[in-house]
Amino acid sequence: MTINSETRFLIVGLGVMGGSYAKALSRRGCSVSGITLEQKDIDYAVAQGIIARGSTVPDPGLVASADVIVFALYPHTFVEWIERYQHLLSPGALVTDVCGVKTSVIKKIQSILRPDVEFISAHPMAGREGSGIEFSDDAVFRGANYIVTPTPSNTPEAVEAAKEIGRMLGFGSISELTPERHDEIVGYLSQLTHCIAVSLMTCRQSEGMELYTGDSFRDLTRIARINDDMWSELFLLNREQLLMQMDEFENEFRRLRSFISYGDRESMREMMRESTRRRALFDKKKQGDQ
Amino acid sequence: MTINSETRFLIVGLGVMGGSYAKALSRRGCSVSGITLEQKDIDYAVAQGIIARGSTVPDPGLVASADVIVFALYPHTFVEWIERYQHLLSPGALVTDVCGVKTSVIKKIQSILRPDVEFISAHPMAGREGSGIEFSDDAVFRGANYIVTPTPSNTPEAVEAAKEIGRMLGFGSISELTPERHDEIVGYLSQLTHCIAVSLMTCRQSEGMELYTGDSFRDLTRIARINDDMWSELFLLNREQLLMQMDEFENEFRRLRSFISYGDRESMREMMRESTRRRALFDKKKQGDQ
Repeated sequence: MTINSETRFLIVGLGVMGGSYAKALSRRGCSVSGITLEQKDIDYAVAQGIIARGSTVPDPGLVASADVIVFALYPHTFVEWIERYQHLLSPGALVTDVCGVKTSVIKKIQSILRPDVEFISAHPMAGREGSGIEFSDDAVFRGANYIVTPTPSNTPEAVEAAKEIGRMLGFGSISELTPERHDEIVGYLSQLTHCIAVSLMTCRQSEGMELYTGDSFRDLTRIARINDDMWSELFLLNREQLLMQMDEFENEFRRLRSFISYGDRESMREMMRESTRRRALFDKKKQGDQ
Repeated sequence: MTINSETRFLIVGLGVMGGSYAKALSRRGCSVSGITLEQKDIDYAVAQGIIARGSTVPDPGLVASADVIVFALYPHTFVEWIERYQHLLSPGALVTDVCGVKTSVIKKIQSILRPDVEFISAHPMAGREGSGIEFSDDAVFRGANYIVTPTPSNTPEAVEAAKEIGRMLGFGSISELTPERHDEIVGYLSQLTHCIAVSLMTCRQSEGMELYTGDSFRDLTRIARINDDMWSELFLLNREQLLMQMDEFENEFRRLRSFISYGDRESMREMMRESTRRRALFDKKKQGDQ
């Protein structure tokens, strides 16, 4: 399947991510329709030109007319939707998603999906605090990373189509990872960071401290404002990997603690220099993106 | 001492923080001179209008003519300077600093300082990555927090003067803490966050991962680019407090780990909701500042 401005997209789930997809694709001239629970979100999306039309139920005509269906739902809702409504999909349709965990979701979907429909999974590494379509904003994709996670069951055409969708959305870097490697890396880069931010925010009484803080604490806790429903699901779906990443972090944190405790300044400094060196690689990339 | 545009300031140490102080005060029309190690930094600061004049040595005339001397040095260098050169200070001069730890520094300085000179300590909660006067920028003070840490030895006039300096620098919030409470709070808000950022950055191999990261990891590791010389000194000067803060964080992190490990989703969600609620207080303040 070739992805271009003629492609008809259906976005299932017009939250902050689904809404941002719809905005970006409509801006590129694609025909974009949407399915979401609340009529007010459909009305808003149509009024704002984010989608051309929409429905609060899996309208057979709407589903059948889509070439690409993007599921911007929580993992378990995505699986339930496929179980109940996949008979409505058009033969040859391409299904993709935005789920933050891959191995378990892909395994489940590929095991139940009709053989005449292909699922290629992808993870847009961009988002915003706040939920709901009013917070959607495709500017967050600019310069951001988009990861396609194919399995041996995927066709090269579907992988290429998913990458093309990432390009149309405006992502700065499009890459490929196996689902397993994705879950390991995202366990570190994203899930562990959320665990740290939440723990930092709740580990002690902090009321009134906004008068004394600098930007470092604000930066480290920005994501401590967290969608508990979604993240608790993601953590449990990637439990094994996440626990391993948490342990690696804790070991390193304890190593630093012991340097401080023993007054081993040279080891502290060595660790800080290594930290500075590694962080520079992430800076460079960000500048390159802009 | 009344602080106004007639006040003659001397900044000792024209690094990123000293340079930012000098910029802000010169902009307010004050007479600002500087002492720093390198002639090139003096030349740069004079050429840019950051200071009116400067010296690479404690020039007696320069020191004696200052009403307020701001020490923008590392703690041990500040103490050494006072030990060696305090005889040059003008009687009635006000000494202040920018040190990130207070209890140990204030105790030391107050014990050795001439009785006809007063030291009032303050901590500007703003900074920039990168060091050196070329990185100085007084815009970082806008909306930021400035903490004065008086002891019973301080006069109300000196406390008020320190606050007025904070206002002239452009800080958004000026507050007062005892040195002990400052070190506890800063151990949490600033030192612990740096320990976390460094440990997150070094706990595992991350080369190439800039292709897969989202903003959360970038935000949590921004300060992992760290001045190892300064921060190792600050950590050791506040060792006891910092170790306590590290332990509180680690306990909370382990609590979250056990919820994930046991699949206790409701406890995870409760912790995330508490985190979200607490973080909102920091957001509000930030908006109020702007």
